[in-house]
Amino acid sequence: MSYYERHVFFCCNQRDPGADRPCCNARGGSKMRDYAKKRVKELGMAGEGKVRINQAGCLDRCEDGPCVVVYPDAVWYTYVDEADIDEIIEQHLRNGRVVERLKM
Amino acid sequence: MSYYERHVFFCCNQRDPGADRPCCNARGGSKMRDYAKKRVKELGMAGEGKVRINQAGCLDRCEDGPCVVVYPDAVWYTYVDEADIDEIIEQHLRNGRVVERLKM
Repeated sequence: MSYYERHVFFCCNQRDPGADRPCCNARGGSKMRDYAKKRVKELGMAGEGKVRINQAGCLDRCEDGPCVVVYPDAVWYTYVDEADIDEIIEQHLRNGRVVERLKM
Repeated sequence: MSYYERHVFFCCNQRDPGADRPCCNARGGSKMRDYAKKRVKELGMAGEGKVRINQAGCLDRCEDGPCVVVYPDAVWYTYVDEADIDEIIEQHLRNGRVVERLKM
């Protein structure tokens, strides 16, 4: 039994301008992590036995990012905007249905 | 199939001195994450299909920390020193055997 039913890690890695690889934070990592954390709390889905939203360092899928991974399911998503995050929260985190269109 | 066979998140949260909860970073979080990352690379265990070591924000198990979680297994450990980290790497990350004495 997992301590969190679903544990979500947003890559929030920030590279220096001019770095030779892209980084998730330049494409909204921290902002979307903050949004997801707020929404999950508002929806009463946060806490032990439920959902935890975390920031993480570089998940090393930079070229395909921005990325987020949901464990223990081990499902990876990319996203563009808050509507994508809402869909992940509603479909996957609440109902356990993988959002195929956002999968990496 | 998980992108990483085992994805390891060290809580590296640093609270201000005088905060009302303890924090993992004051008990070695970042230092042990750096050590684990270095060792896993040296052992040739790092990369896609293998092991990834990451830092994470507060995992919200502060009172029981320092803590680290291994996904997709969803096994949580605490640790004291590098010998504990070596045991987690050798037993769990390499051989898939949970280190019972360090489990949270």
